[in-house]
Amino acid sequence: MAEKPKTEENTIFIGGKPFMNYVTGVVMQFTTKGAKEVIIKARGKFIARAVDVAEVSTKRFLKEHHIVVKDIKINSEEFENKEGKKVNVSTIDITLIKK
Amino acid sequence: MAEKPKTEENTIFIGGKPFMNYVTGVVMQFTTKGAKEVIIKARGKFIARAVDVAEVSTKRFLKEHHIVVKDIKINSEEFENKEGKKVNVSTIDITLIKK
Repeated sequence: MAEKPKTEENTIFIGGKPFMNYVTGVVMQFTTKGAKEVIIKARGKFIARAVDVAEVSTKRFLKEHHIVVKDIKINSEEFENKEGKKVNVSTIDITLIKK
Repeated sequence: MAEKPKTEENTIFIGGKPFMNYVTGVVMQFTTKGAKEVIIKARGKFIARAVDVAEVSTKRFLKEHHIVVKDIKINSEEFENKEGKKVNVSTIDITLIKK
């Protein structure tokens, strides 16, 4: 069977939920769901958390699964804040793959 | 003349000082100091800030200098906290180069 197309399903958006929710999300993608690739995405202050999720998932929970960081991209997005002023927020995409 | 060796001088460690201090540091490395490569390093909660510094430096202040992200590495460091307990902290190294 052909490789699954990359869908939103393989993407974990990091926000303010309990930390382990995100780690479990990443781990389950690779284990029970058989994903070959998972993208961890975050914006602004959640970027540090995205790195924590990637590190804890790969080094503590997926040690025997040979999951590695394939690529990390950073970027900026412009959005309007509550006062209608345009502000920039940084973003990060951390792509993990099964070797 | 041979290319300068990579020294600590080309490394900017991100901490709690005013944001623009770091941006100015990166910009000056590439402009007045003629660096070919600058590494922005941060740990823990300062990781999001490191990404902001990289984005603002390259996209707002160094637009005409063709500075791009060459590589981003994430890792974990173990250290002892005040209670003597070993804890992990995530780290990021963002390498910028002059194209």
